[in-house]
Amino acid sequence: MDEKLEKIKMCRHSLSHVLAKAVKNVFGKENVKLAIGPAIDDGFYYDFDMPAVTPEKYAEIEKEMKSIIGKSQEFKRVELSRGAALELFKDEPYKIELINELPDGETISCYYLGDDFVDLCRGPHVENTAKLQAYAYKINRISGAYWKGDEHNKMLQRVYVYAFPDKKQLADYINMLEEAQKRDHNKLGRELELFTTVDYVGQGLPIMLPKGTKILQILQRFVEDEEAKRGWQLTKTPLMAKSDLYKISGHWDHYKDGMFVLGDEEKDKEVFALRPMTCPFQYQAYLNKARSYRDLPLRYDETSTLFRNEASGEMHGLIRVRQFTISEGHLMCTPEQLEQEFRGCLELATFMLKTLGLYEDASYRFSQWDPANREKYIGTNEQWDEAQGIMEKILKDLDVPYYVGVGEAAFYGPKLDIQIKNVWGKEDTLITIQIDQMLAEKFGMVYTDKDGEKKNPYIIHRTSIGCYERTLAYLIEKYAGAFPVWLAPTQVKVMNISESNEQYAQEIYQKLYDLGYRVEFDNRNEKIGYKIREAASMKIPYMIIIGDGEKDTNTISIRGRGNENASGLQLDDFIARLQSEIDTKKIK
Amino acid sequence: MDEKLEKIKMCRHSLSHVLAKAVKNVFGKENVKLAIGPAIDDGFYYDFDMPAVTPEKYAEIEKEMKSIIGKSQEFKRVELSRGAALELFKDEPYKIELINELPDGETISCYYLGDDFVDLCRGPHVENTAKLQAYAYKINRISGAYWKGDEHNKMLQRVYVYAFPDKKQLADYINMLEEAQKRDHNKLGRELELFTTVDYVGQGLPIMLPKGTKILQILQRFVEDEEAKRGWQLTKTPLMAKSDLYKISGHWDHYKDGMFVLGDEEKDKEVFALRPMTCPFQYQAYLNKARSYRDLPLRYDETSTLFRNEASGEMHGLIRVRQFTISEGHLMCTPEQLEQEFRGCLELATFMLKTLGLYEDASYRFSQWDPANREKYIGTNEQWDEAQGIMEKILKDLDVPYYVGVGEAAFYGPKLDIQIKNVWGKEDTLITIQIDQMLAEKFGMVYTDKDGEKKNPYIIHRTSIGCYERTLAYLIEKYAGAFPVWLAPTQVKVMNISESNEQYAQEIYQKLYDLGYRVEFDNRNEKIGYKIREAASMKIPYMIIIGDGEKDTNTISIRGRGNENASGLQLDDFIARLQSEIDTKKIK
Repeated sequence: MDEKLEKIKMCRHSLSHVLAKAVKNVFGKENVKLAIGPAIDDGFYYDFDMPAVTPEKYAEIEKEMKSIIGKSQEFKRVELSRGAALELFKDEPYKIELINELPDGETISCYYLGDDFVDLCRGPHVENTAKLQAYAYKINRISGAYWKGDEHNKMLQRVYVYAFPDKKQLADYINMLEEAQKRDHNKLGRELELFTTVDYVGQGLPIMLPKGTKILQILQRFVEDEEAKRGWQLTKTPLMAKSDLYKISGHWDHYKDGMFVLGDEEKDKEVFALRPMTCPFQYQAYLNKARSYRDLPLRYDETSTLFRNEASGEMHGLIRVRQFTISEGHLMCTPEQLEQEFRGCLELATFMLKTLGLYEDASYRFSQWDPANREKYIGTNEQWDEAQGIMEKILKDLDVPYYVGVGEAAFYGPKLDIQIKNVWGKEDTLITIQIDQMLAEKFGMVYTDKDGEKKNPYIIHRTSIGCYERTLAYLIEKYAGAFPVWLAPTQVKVMNISESNEQYAQEIYQKLYDLGYRVEFDNRNEKIGYKIREAASMKIPYMIIIGDGEKDTNTISIRGRGNENASGLQLDDFIARLQSEIDTKKIK
Repeated sequence: MDEKLEKIKMCRHSLSHVLAKAVKNVFGKENVKLAIGPAIDDGFYYDFDMPAVTPEKYAEIEKEMKSIIGKSQEFKRVELSRGAALELFKDEPYKIELINELPDGETISCYYLGDDFVDLCRGPHVENTAKLQAYAYKINRISGAYWKGDEHNKMLQRVYVYAFPDKKQLADYINMLEEAQKRDHNKLGRELELFTTVDYVGQGLPIMLPKGTKILQILQRFVEDEEAKRGWQLTKTPLMAKSDLYKISGHWDHYKDGMFVLGDEEKDKEVFALRPMTCPFQYQAYLNKARSYRDLPLRYDETSTLFRNEASGEMHGLIRVRQFTISEGHLMCTPEQLEQEFRGCLELATFMLKTLGLYEDASYRFSQWDPANREKYIGTNEQWDEAQGIMEKILKDLDVPYYVGVGEAAFYGPKLDIQIKNVWGKEDTLITIQIDQMLAEKFGMVYTDKDGEKKNPYIIHRTSIGCYERTLAYLIEKYAGAFPVWLAPTQVKVMNISESNEQYAQEIYQKLYDLGYRVEFDNRNEKIGYKIREAASMKIPYMIIIGDGEKDTNTISIRGRGNENASGLQLDDFIARLQSEIDTKKIK
């Protein structure tokens, strides 16, 4: 960490002591027991054992913090023996627990803030609260947190505080958060009725509502058709298999913790597991008959549902889920074909990213193995060196501007991961292209070469737009819900101003509907302003607004998302424009 | 059972004794221990504990049977005490076991066949083998069968024999079997490379190969688009959920044995189960916001993958599997809308059946509950009477020619099942339409009616073409693999006769490919007869055969599946015909 960041961290940590002192002052020393209070990325938090605090109290706490800082109080470090520490913190049960856990011989230190507040702490801190004068801070929220993160322990009150070196930086940060909040797919996706989740169904198992499903259906058909054009053959393989399959593939030894297992190996004759990847299933299509070099490359794709047994805390909206559907494919080829086929996969991924408008946001990670964690991988060191060497050469040949991720490889080979960040800055893999020279051997996949010899093909594992759910999440955030017309679940909303023009509006609606456009009709007896606001909140690309003027002149008025307003249009001209935007998959 | 069938059964049973005697004669009394030998639908079988028998011995056994029958031997019934029976069968350990299991007081009888063969048997039998003279019989196969069907017991040799009253009936039957064999989807579907199965993946988990997947993809898009036209909105809901969901729906109490459960209720915090039905998942879309009578009917459909924990012995090809994908939908409506919406569902199903050419083969079963098995169902007697009354009225109003299946209802309501038989005569449900007035209440699904009251909607559960895998199975059998052009995985195969016309053939191929037809090109250096035979065996609708004649006149020759041969055609005319067959979904 650089020096500047170290300093910010120290200031935030010092502010956490100021907060603790302020909370004790406000609520009474005896009513507040201290747990811990570290710096975090956007400020700090402190866990207190105390009665729940309502947001009305935030201002009072912040005021008390300001008062403490204003007094230019000193942070004073004191080192002490375990016995002295236990005596000093005898009224703070959580500190006592921490002191008892410290290994023998470790220096025990505490920091005084003025004479009337002391906290067990390793430090460092600023010398004096005067150094914190310029700092801007603001209580973000208070939420429950178990002591030591263990649900068997007592629930404490965690006070989160934003803290930045000055007011402008804090304001910018809060502004950024508000922007992200507006685009956050996990919020916006629900407001737009794209998906929902339900507690009794389970975490990480989103329910795609009709509007969200429509987008997924459009994407799926687009991907399947585009891949077919590029010579990929669709398969549909089972979502579960006996453990026997995973034992051959290596998943049982190297990925079992991430899998949902059905049955108990000690009790049941057959144990099944839901698949976390498509590879060993799709290989069965290759194995279905004898293959010759003339059959290669063989490209299989699948709209494939996968399951990962993610921990509850890991789940996030549509980005990290327990079940997802992915545009997955496996390509079997000869060594001579490898580079060209890899290029084909990369071109496909790039085409998809550009079509969706996500290309500018992506970066490339060359995910390598970590020789220090040998047990995580199959194959020999030589095989890894060779596979990574081949991949490096290809990436250089193709001028891919990659960075390296050590320990990010699959257990069977290196990957090129196309990475993307969500609105909160968290990065995940959207698309992956992998080179595998190990699994063909494990499954006995061979082809007869020109020389009559049986050889294992190289396998490229690849996605093209990756997980549909995750891609949808990034699309929601990228467009803040205002999807390109070809993807928008509702493309046009027709609305009449009054009863006298309802019939004409109905005809407009019917014509668009019969032509296959995704169109809604709002003929409710509501003010037109209300109808417009509602359609705007659903980010519908075009509203067609029909009043008596439009009816009398046999025209339409439209209102587009970019504050576009136009009157006196011919319906056919509008349809031509709409169709052109759909055909070209116009982004903006 | 009628008298005639009773008589046939008695003759078959008598023949099983003849077989047993013949087997003892051929292999030696001491080497053959008798188990049991009942009549079955197409003959009989007998289980023997003896060394494995190869098919070469079949003729010898049949000859010995003929010889025994020719001797006009008498079947003689003798009743005896348990003690006497144990003595008589002291060398037959399986008979001894059976005798010991007979309850006290039960008459113990045996039948002599001549003086030198006796079998423990309840009878009845013909008086004399002379009565079996006209009978035609033929050993079908010998396969292993565990004593009493229990895998912990010894594996016996089960000799299956076809047996009919005369030679013609036997010949007709074997002929029918051979026809069925040719159409059997489980054999033909593999030969046509539509699907395969793999032991280490698991039973009932078919792997759809590219050609099979292509048909499923076409069907899926067709169904989704047709349903969208009819006002159905597609959802995509999770394939698994916590047990909590199934406890609300009643599946946990009434369907758990048919489900794959993940985890152990006693050990794990969360227990999941793979879904056997879509209902409780799709209801979540309804529950996503408040509903009014104005929103009804609400029609949700889904291309839904389901899992059923079928016993190993139950699995059959694509018809009975552990994982399948179904065109499932749920429709929420008011009581007044129920009949019309039911009619709509039935019309949709009928449209699908007619389009696929399966309509003539279907029959309608009104599946009712069985009040004698109350514990299998939720709801009160009154609710069942009401729901079945409503369904009966609708079926009569719609003139559906149904028969009744008692005990075939779902646990939550009565069904109209559209039944179809496979080539072996086994009947299964293809499509189902169900009326449910119970689950809405369980899930708290309500709508605000005109009078301001909150009411539970009626729910129609329905499929439209049912399970895609099962439908594909029936299509394979119906068309013996020669699919209608719109469904055929390969529609056209272009083949050149010699190298001199390869270039022209390639152009024809490319034009069809670019137009989006599913076309293959066979430019191998093989005799044209060989190429034609191969394409014919794959049941490809059209072959385009290109020789120098075609090249010189810029025409094509085609060969259709119905032995159609035509030369001197213009490619464009052929394309127009092809496209018309696709557009009209021409069946034959």
